[in-house]
Amino acid sequence: MSDAKTGDSSPGHLHRLVLFSDAVFAIAITLLAIEIHPPHHWHGASDLFNQMGRKLLAYAVSFAVVGVCWFSHRRLFARLAKADSGLDLVNFLLLGLIALLPLGTELLWEDGNQALPIYVGLVALIGVAMGVVWGYAAFVGKLTEPMPVAEAWFIWLRVTLLPGLMCGLSLYSLVHPWGWFLMIALLVGLGWISKRVTAAPPPKTATPKAA
Amino acid sequence: MSDAKTGDSSPGHLHRLVLFSDAVFAIAITLLAIEIHPPHHWHGASDLFNQMGRKLLAYAVSFAVVGVCWFSHRRLFARLAKADSGLDLVNFLLLGLIALLPLGTELLWEDGNQALPIYVGLVALIGVAMGVVWGYAAFVGKLTEPMPVAEAWFIWLRVTLLPGLMCGLSLYSLVHPWGWFLMIALLVGLGWISKRVTAAPPPKTATPKAA
Amino acid sequence: MSDAKTGDSSPGHLHRLVLFSDAVFAIAITLLAIEIHPPHHWHGASDLFNQMGRKLLAYAVSFAVVGVCWFSHRRLFARLAKADSGLDLVNFLLLGLIALLPLGTELLWEDGNQALPIYVGLVALIGVAMGVVWGYAAFVGKLTEPMPVAEAWFIWLRVTLLPGLMCGLSLYSLVHPWGWFLMIALLVGLGWISKRVTAAPPPKTATPKAA
Amino acid sequence: MSDAKTGDSSPGHLHRLVLFSDAVFAIAITLLAIEIHPPHHWHGASDLFNQMGRKLLAYAVSFAVVGVCWFSHRRLFARLAKADSGLDLVNFLLLGLIALLPLGTELLWEDGNQALPIYVGLVALIGVAMGVVWGYAAFVGKLTEPMPVAEAWFIWLRVTLLPGLMCGLSLYSLVHPWGWFLMIALLVGLGWISKRVTAAPPPKTATPKAA
Repeated sequence: MSDAKTGDSSPGHLHRLVLFSDAVFAIAITLLAIEIHPPHHWHGASDLFNQMGRKLLAYAVSFAVVGVCWFSHRRLFARLAKADSGLDLVNFLLLGLIALLPLGTELLWEDGNQALPIYVGLVALIGVAMGVVWGYAAFVGKLTEPMPVAEAWFIWLRVTLLPGLMCGLSLYSLVHPWGWFLMIALLVGLGWISKRVTAAPPPKTATPKAA
Repeated sequence: MSDAKTGDSSPGHLHRLVLFSDAVFAIAITLLAIEIHPPHHWHGASDLFNQMGRKLLAYAVSFAVVGVCWFSHRRLFARLAKADSGLDLVNFLLLGLIALLPLGTELLWEDGNQALPIYVGLVALIGVAMGVVWGYAAFVGKLTEPMPVAEAWFIWLRVTLLPGLMCGLSLYSLVHPWGWFLMIALLVGLGWISKRVTAAPPPKTATPKAA
Repeated sequence: MSDAKTGDSSPGHLHRLVLFSDAVFAIAITLLAIEIHPPHHWHGASDLFNQMGRKLLAYAVSFAVVGVCWFSHRRLFARLAKADSGLDLVNFLLLGLIALLPLGTELLWEDGNQALPIYVGLVALIGVAMGVVWGYAAFVGKLTEPMPVAEAWFIWLRVTLLPGLMCGLSLYSLVHPWGWFLMIALLVGLGWISKRVTAAPPPKTATPKAA
Repeated sequence: MSDAKTGDSSPGHLHRLVLFSDAVFAIAITLLAIEIHPPHHWHGASDLFNQMGRKLLAYAVSFAVVGVCWFSHRRLFARLAKADSGLDLVNFLLLGLIALLPLGTELLWEDGNQALPIYVGLVALIGVAMGVVWGYAAFVGKLTEPMPVAEAWFIWLRVTLLPGLMCGLSLYSLVHPWGWFLMIALLVGLGWISKRVTAAPPPKTATPKAA
């Protein structure tokens, strides 16, 4: 009751935070494509794809990046039991970087060689922000459901490094198309490892809800 | 509980996936119109519609296409009982194609003759992606509520072919306006058939929840 | 159970329809402003408002129009007990007209004299579409909670005529600023009348849920 | 039951209002970035940031402003127990001002010196609108959960003044970078004060739900 009074841990808080984040993700992902305009003159589908190929590839890369971020964000928030004002703040910073991705994509297709380090830097920064969100939730705000400390650190590592890794692989895929399969393999593999890590020490924490 | 631990089958997962998809659909459908700008000079309503007719028709076609996709998506997800990471992935690929529709619409009104096969190809691809989502959910991930196998295949056929069919009819409607009525008839008819197919074998599956 | 099987009357259907509509409304209302760009040269706030006045007024009018539509839509859907595929369709047509409002607003500020009848026509058409949605829900699909027939017709009249009336008043307000107060008075008054009409015949319908 | 009949106090009303507001906030915050386009020619990251610095700073400021507004809005609505038509109206006016922030941001980066007072005025107006929303909810519509009158006035002061204060601090931060830390400190401090004020008089209001 005293928590509900400050409006910070009401049951709707976490829900609203997730809704708001999802809306930002959805808009960012849709705006990735809106800046792509068709060329003025083109003859046949192959010419069209030749002219637009760079843009479509940049779109695919950024789409994969936002997808990985959304996926991480969803999994991360699925582990939280409540929210507080600090989580609002760090999540907001994360969304601020996500909202810059359409701009980064535009940079990427206009002058790929120069823009690459900046783009990768932005994505790595998003990973770091994701790590800050989880770090705050798990270690500062104690907002998660009860879990072994080892698992909390495994998740922290994963959310911090995954965006950068996936982005590197995506850009690698521009040159070597089978990088896409590597990426899917990485996702599936991580899911498998994650399941094992979380399943390993069940007797460590009993059922009590208090972290 | 062990499912909830991986954050993959928590009750909120399916809900969040639907919310996120709805947001992408809503943005894609609204952006279809935002690229339409009025002509610089026009005299009277009939001149305005003459100049903008092509764009408004392309808007109407794409609007119908997104509408059919959203309708299929809603019905498809209404049959699911849970979600997993694989569903995240295939649904994400589907949304990536949906987000390209505003670009396809722009192609369509700028150079309709050349763009038609590309546009229809994109829509057919969306149908295939929808079929992948349902195929994964029904046959790989076993995420649906219990249903007869025949019905699962009927739904798979419908979601895979409907977008292509509806798009063909829409484009046909550009030349023959009564194609719109045909389209509505198809929708109503499919709903009627679907009700019969699903109502037919009720004793086959009892009440147990496990697929 | 047989209803849930077709995926048409599941409890989540109405909820998802509302969510999707809300997202379209929210995007349409935000896009109204995005096409407004500041002038290239201006000196001081009064010069800025002189140059942008027409655009800001068109924004305010369209904002009020979308506001009235959202308000009507929310009240209309608050009376529904379930949804079906037909409601999906008519609601979709309504959203298709809502999504055209940013374009109508652009017309309005670029060539107000010519665009006025077209804009008012679009808004009146939105009212008609709203009436179609309610008419379908109340009289065809029987989707509403139980209510007296007289009330159903009162609501039908209100949702059909209100957007046109409010739009007329808004445009009138461009010339006579006190039109805004008239508009607010109309809203408050309608709310008061509506409360009386709905409160009047309580014994007519008992508690049974079936319409 | 009689309340549900007017469609004004149904349990879904407050929820839908929050959803709609969140969508507008999310779109406004994402559109802040979409108008930023990279320069046509640039050599290396430092040149890029030199050319884009002004825009990125305006983005950061506006992002912080929308963040504060969303944060205030979330906390404000967390205290509400129900919604009515009047709340729809005042919340709508607030959203109308929020939707103008991308335009204000564009003004800010194009001609910062002239645009500053207009931008700060817009943000201050948003604070006032927020105060109107709370004032209506707490004192006119009696929509809040039970709380001491002193606390209601404290919240009113906070939501009315916070946006203006935060915006001033943000703009100050453009010149003195450590203004950012001051801003975070202010947020943390206010949260701490708010907790004390709300915790102070617990015996004043008993458990009854009626305000």
